[in-house]
Amino acid sequence: MDLNSPQIKEIVKRALAEDIGGGDITTRLTVPSSATASGVIIAKEAGVIAGLEVATLCFETVDPSIKFVPLARDGDRVSPGQKLATIDGPAGSILTAERVALNFLQRMSGVATLTSEFVKSVSGTSAKIIDTRKTTPGLRALEKHAVRVGGGSNHRFGLDDGILIKDNHIAVAGGVGPAVRAAKAGAPHTLKVEVEVRNIAETEEALASGADAILLDNMSLDEMREAVKLIAGRAIIEASGGVNAQTVTAIAETGVDLISVGMLTHSAKALDLSLQMGYPK
Amino acid sequence: MDLNSPQIKEIVKRALAEDIGGGDITTRLTVPSSATASGVIIAKEAGVIAGLEVATLCFETVDPSIKFVPLARDGDRVSPGQKLATIDGPAGSILTAERVALNFLQRMSGVATLTSEFVKSVSGTSAKIIDTRKTTPGLRALEKHAVRVGGGSNHRFGLDDGILIKDNHIAVAGGVGPAVRAAKAGAPHTLKVEVEVRNIAETEEALASGADAILLDNMSLDEMREAVKLIAGRAIIEASGGVNAQTVTAIAETGVDLISVGMLTHSAKALDLSLQMGYPK
Amino acid sequence: MDLNSPQIKEIVKRALAEDIGGGDITTRLTVPSSATASGVIIAKEAGVIAGLEVATLCFETVDPSIKFVPLARDGDRVSPGQKLATIDGPAGSILTAERVALNFLQRMSGVATLTSEFVKSVSGTSAKIIDTRKTTPGLRALEKHAVRVGGGSNHRFGLDDGILIKDNHIAVAGGVGPAVRAAKAGAPHTLKVEVEVRNIAETEEALASGADAILLDNMSLDEMREAVKLIAGRAIIEASGGVNAQTVTAIAETGVDLISVGMLTHSAKALDLSLQMGYPK
Amino acid sequence: MDLNSPQIKEIVKRALAEDIGGGDITTRLTVPSSATASGVIIAKEAGVIAGLEVATLCFETVDPSIKFVPLARDGDRVSPGQKLATIDGPAGSILTAERVALNFLQRMSGVATLTSEFVKSVSGTSAKIIDTRKTTPGLRALEKHAVRVGGGSNHRFGLDDGILIKDNHIAVAGGVGPAVRAAKAGAPHTLKVEVEVRNIAETEEALASGADAILLDNMSLDEMREAVKLIAGRAIIEASGGVNAQTVTAIAETGVDLISVGMLTHSAKALDLSLQMGYPK
Amino acid sequence: MDLNSPQIKEIVKRALAEDIGGGDITTRLTVPSSATASGVIIAKEAGVIAGLEVATLCFETVDPSIKFVPLARDGDRVSPGQKLATIDGPAGSILTAERVALNFLQRMSGVATLTSEFVKSVSGTSAKIIDTRKTTPGLRALEKHAVRVGGGSNHRFGLDDGILIKDNHIAVAGGVGPAVRAAKAGAPHTLKVEVEVRNIAETEEALASGADAILLDNMSLDEMREAVKLIAGRAIIEASGGVNAQTVTAIAETGVDLISVGMLTHSAKALDLSLQMGYPK
Amino acid sequence: MDLNSPQIKEIVKRALAEDIGGGDITTRLTVPSSATASGVIIAKEAGVIAGLEVATLCFETVDPSIKFVPLARDGDRVSPGQKLATIDGPAGSILTAERVALNFLQRMSGVATLTSEFVKSVSGTSAKIIDTRKTTPGLRALEKHAVRVGGGSNHRFGLDDGILIKDNHIAVAGGVGPAVRAAKAGAPHTLKVEVEVRNIAETEEALASGADAILLDNMSLDEMREAVKLIAGRAIIEASGGVNAQTVTAIAETGVDLISVGMLTHSAKALDLSLQMGYPK
Repeated sequence: MDLNSPQIKEIVKRALAEDIGGGDITTRLTVPSSATASGVIIAKEAGVIAGLEVATLCFETVDPSIKFVPLARDGDRVSPGQKLATIDGPAGSILTAERVALNFLQRMSGVATLTSEFVKSVSGTSAKIIDTRKTTPGLRALEKHAVRVGGGSNHRFGLDDGILIKDNHIAVAGGVGPAVRAAKAGAPHTLKVEVEVRNIAETEEALASGADAILLDNMSLDEMREAVKLIAGRAIIEASGGVNAQTVTAIAETGVDLISVGMLTHSAKALDLSLQMGYPK
Repeated sequence: MDLNSPQIKEIVKRALAEDIGGGDITTRLTVPSSATASGVIIAKEAGVIAGLEVATLCFETVDPSIKFVPLARDGDRVSPGQKLATIDGPAGSILTAERVALNFLQRMSGVATLTSEFVKSVSGTSAKIIDTRKTTPGLRALEKHAVRVGGGSNHRFGLDDGILIKDNHIAVAGGVGPAVRAAKAGAPHTLKVEVEVRNIAETEEALASGADAILLDNMSLDEMREAVKLIAGRAIIEASGGVNAQTVTAIAETGVDLISVGMLTHSAKALDLSLQMGYPK
Repeated sequence: MDLNSPQIKEIVKRALAEDIGGGDITTRLTVPSSATASGVIIAKEAGVIAGLEVATLCFETVDPSIKFVPLARDGDRVSPGQKLATIDGPAGSILTAERVALNFLQRMSGVATLTSEFVKSVSGTSAKIIDTRKTTPGLRALEKHAVRVGGGSNHRFGLDDGILIKDNHIAVAGGVGPAVRAAKAGAPHTLKVEVEVRNIAETEEALASGADAILLDNMSLDEMREAVKLIAGRAIIEASGGVNAQTVTAIAETGVDLISVGMLTHSAKALDLSLQMGYPK
Repeated sequence: MDLNSPQIKEIVKRALAEDIGGGDITTRLTVPSSATASGVIIAKEAGVIAGLEVATLCFETVDPSIKFVPLARDGDRVSPGQKLATIDGPAGSILTAERVALNFLQRMSGVATLTSEFVKSVSGTSAKIIDTRKTTPGLRALEKHAVRVGGGSNHRFGLDDGILIKDNHIAVAGGVGPAVRAAKAGAPHTLKVEVEVRNIAETEEALASGADAILLDNMSLDEMREAVKLIAGRAIIEASGGVNAQTVTAIAETGVDLISVGMLTHSAKALDLSLQMGYPK
Repeated sequence: MDLNSPQIKEIVKRALAEDIGGGDITTRLTVPSSATASGVIIAKEAGVIAGLEVATLCFETVDPSIKFVPLARDGDRVSPGQKLATIDGPAGSILTAERVALNFLQRMSGVATLTSEFVKSVSGTSAKIIDTRKTTPGLRALEKHAVRVGGGSNHRFGLDDGILIKDNHIAVAGGVGPAVRAAKAGAPHTLKVEVEVRNIAETEEALASGADAILLDNMSLDEMREAVKLIAGRAIIEASGGVNAQTVTAIAETGVDLISVGMLTHSAKALDLSLQMGYPK
Repeated sequence: MDLNSPQIKEIVKRALAEDIGGGDITTRLTVPSSATASGVIIAKEAGVIAGLEVATLCFETVDPSIKFVPLARDGDRVSPGQKLATIDGPAGSILTAERVALNFLQRMSGVATLTSEFVKSVSGTSAKIIDTRKTTPGLRALEKHAVRVGGGSNHRFGLDDGILIKDNHIAVAGGVGPAVRAAKAGAPHTLKVEVEVRNIAETEEALASGADAILLDNMSLDEMREAVKLIAGRAIIEASGGVNAQTVTAIAETGVDLISVGMLTHSAKALDLSLQMGYPK
């Protein structure tokens, strides 16, 4: 998590504005402004935790006098009942910030947990699990962090920090070769050029035109094995399409370098966590 | 979808900024600015569609010259292979907008589809399925729309448009009765006062103090039935806690009015959709 | 005042930006950066004070080293000459923040003071004074706070946190009955349904269709009395239209529950306050 | 009104966001999306109209398909019952935009109307009525426009576009003379230097140090006359303090050039206007 | 520098967001989060320093735990090798903030240095060097500060804080006289009216219509001398057009009051500075 | 120029807000709102033009009714007197937008022109001219576009889209080898890893640890030649430090692939352009 990034502060500020709006009416009406409280965030199921710094930021943005003390670190595998953080401060402020903090923490931990399961499924192979741009609009930086925390690696963050020539670009550019050569000619030297291919012929064309990375899209296991053999280390090999818990191990065993999994971010379920409070303190 | 709300335009603008950043390098390098294309969004699995207006807004915000023609409407149940919209315009602009539009459409349709399944599970009872504040930070308005599209109803949108006194408020306020009475005394007359109770004794206290709605939190089916009998129409009854596909029908049959389901928004998986393009046109 | 709301911080930041723009030229040219000063905010007429926390925020946003010590609390009735707060810190910073802080404080206190006068006019009756959406664009949260501080209550904060079916909705929906029933069917269960009626027949229709609250719009005192008798506690009764200092007591005596007064926020005059400074310190 | 200024668009956008928030629930539930309507804005009392362009912007921002046709122009004096504009378009969009548009129009017209009364009170003298920085936070540009529309003139718009040395600056700077000389030495040549004085001695000091304009603060009529005589055209003369409908004519007759009136913007009451709609169309 | 202005904080925040985006990958991958470092900013060429407060703000915005200690002040003339500031704190944070801080400091110092050279060229005359609106979009407040730091003075900051009638306004308004008279009639009394003239006839017309300042545009030295003689102190005289290091002294010697130089801000080169770091600390 | 990027629209909007603020007073006072005009943008010196689309956006944002017709394209080399665009529309709107549009166009054209000179200096060699992160805060996307337009290539856009390990990272990481290996292990596969080296020993270490690109920092020509020979195509070679018009050709002749030039963006002078208007039309 790069909390030095102004982006993260903006995301938290907006999420709080979305939930708090004109103010927390229930708290205003039922909680005296002098009341203080202490709380603890507890895991209600097993998983990999991600987002503790974001949760901290939620509470501190609502009220800088809240003290949030993490008892775990991003990437820790936690057990049901395990305490993740303690929170002390004005009761009203804690109640106002609670839901947004948990929403971030549960979603990010859900992504980290699902990623860790995929990573486990490919252990013993040389394949890495990577994410995609199929992230929740507005939360990409957080979800990409959660993928790393879960043991995965990141694909590009957006259209501006990586080159991935897909089928539609190829169709317009007039083929794999012309597309790759155009990209290599104009790309910043800091970026590799990756191209999506659908068969062995396109794989050969990609190699011939100098692609740095080749994405095997929706190939069969046999085709993947053939492509791996053909490429023979001359380009990074990514596999994508139809990847799930059932198929990922076999795909990894074909020898590809990277397996990209959209569901890490578009279909992870939230990790069950809760904030339990105690009074008086 | 209330596209007249400036909120929705902001959400779309930010999501595009997140993905596009300084510009779509791949498209700049491989797609001539004069190229045009036509595409079609296709359902790759069955489900309930939601978010077509948001998808429209994504394409039009990137480039007003793109023509997006929906072939379905939010709330339609679609089949695999069904066409959802056609898109015509500059090829580069379409490619730049594609992923963000699909990310919105797939997530919203995922929420709508999951909601529709819960709604079906309670058909024949008088219970309604409702959402919670356990939404994706930044996307609450869209996810609440998707819940409605899927046949569910909405709980409050934020801390400022509804009153829900939870266990922590009660603990600070000194009990169910004092909390409810304080809320009723100070609340805008446009808002009902809902309170969370854990047992029959608290249910009685809630009724006695005039709660408009009572949330039965994590009660057993027997307790719920007893509470329904006790309340007898004098307050709206919401059930929550431990609601899933296995338990929801039995909960609905206890006679509660509303069943709130956090997983509608925090754990729905994306509906599988794709954009297929054709050239030349 | 819910200063935990990010909204309030935004309002203050924008107001300061509006006034300060590229910088306070006069202060830059005439006040040495090392000069310190102390000041006191003084009431120049009697009234009810509102906005002290917002004033604090103005000074602290301009310069966190300014010390603002309130000597009164929102809701206090103050006398001419009474000191409301002391301010110590860099002279330049205090001068730069002064006008914006006073603009908020004077306007909010004006609203609170006018509200308190209406509240006094209905004392001894069961009617509450409430506000409307006829607020200053951009300042609604602050003005609604000032109304509460003055002893009034709040109507809804915006179009998204309450349901009020007005004459134009009724005309489109095809009558009071259809409009109320549509609203009740689709509304979040946290919101009551209020409908505006113009005569006894519409009042009966509103009751019959289950309205939770009925707004008697521009009725005569006799009609109001008749409506109160007819409704007989089955719905909350709001009166509006033609409410002013002369008419409000008689309206309250008809037995209505709520009297909404647009002029609380659209026509309150500012309370006269000033900041007096002393040098050197 | 300088609608080319991005500021105005921002103000309107924020005001709409404040009112609409997550969406207009009442309209969503009661008005079919296909319904159209026509409306007319009508003056319910006499006054000077201001803000018609801002009202247009409100409607068009909510829905570009609304047609807003003004029947009057800013600055027109209108009579009770006079039609100010017609509005045609989707009924739901009109209802959603209505209140914000009227809030702007009523407040701005209120300021213009009050200004016009002061202007009338000084007719026949050479004095101009001007505004102050005692404006509504966030609406300064609009209120200053309304003052011009009502026949008044503007003082500076903020701390960055004019120099006004006030008592507190003078106290820190060590006197009227040092303050004026410091300001003249460092000011952009496009700005005049104005200084506030409390008596004849300070007036002489201001003149001697080259002030371009002198603000006579809270002087008696006799002192003002003496100051006017002393200054004799060598500086612009502004009077302020204790200006109201009763005193303004006498002040103008002393021969001052400008009379600044805080209440133009901090205590104007809204002009009564309404939007009447017709169906079907 | 008026760091109390919210504008400056916004400019810094945006510049950091532009550079940091989703996060500093290099630093994340190579610098342990526990590493600390100390650094020093050093001048690599001679010049006038400007922007130290902005640089401070850059580091503190990225990480409030960084300690930035300036060893010089804005306006100091520095020598090659001179230390300008020390920086201590987390190594990663310092590296993340470094480039943006230097970009501001180098550009502002470049403007100040170039300004100081022009100022030196007119020493001994009564002419002041002033800037224009030909500034870098988004950085005007900072560049105008740098001009002052370099010994120059500021022209207006924008279209809203000064009146300068240029050839195009004159053409539309129907001549120098009508344009000046219209401006004087409607301008806030805090602003002077300046008009651009191209020859002696227009200069006379400007004087006759009461211009407070007259800009001699692209006149020859002889024309300037004639204009100075004609105006004879009755208006401020600004010269512009074709001003550079070669011509400025002769222009100043014609007796004009102000010489505006666009290149101060549109063509200054950055001052060469660097940040040198030491480890461990 | 990727005008589909929301970033560019934001940059233009902010620049206009900076200049226009509360409104263009001069134009309001001197130009009738009904006046129309036509203008032409003319080059006053030779150079390479960049930014025509941004200029278009400036005029259209101020007033969509302005017609801006470019007569050249970004990248064209223009001669003194050449017409670059015609502009027709409301005179006031054109005058309000003029300066900001020209400020963008002149700065971007200045960068493109300087870049084209460096590119010419290395013609006949295999070296490319590239930019750095030493750009104007807030304008990086525009300046990087201008570099491309001038025939140069881009280095990374920010800290988040490229990996460049500099001396300070190396010092903290414990050497060139450890730093490169850490970066390669954790980097997204879309990014190359570049490392800065100061001598031949470090160059060997960089190669041995698998760096994709090696930046030769401030090496002598002899060292560069030696490094080129050593690397022998196994990594991309960038040279930086002390690059100017005098040295760049010799550096290019050493055989390096890329030469990065900070002054392209931090010290380019604006290209001289003007907008000439005609009336009436």
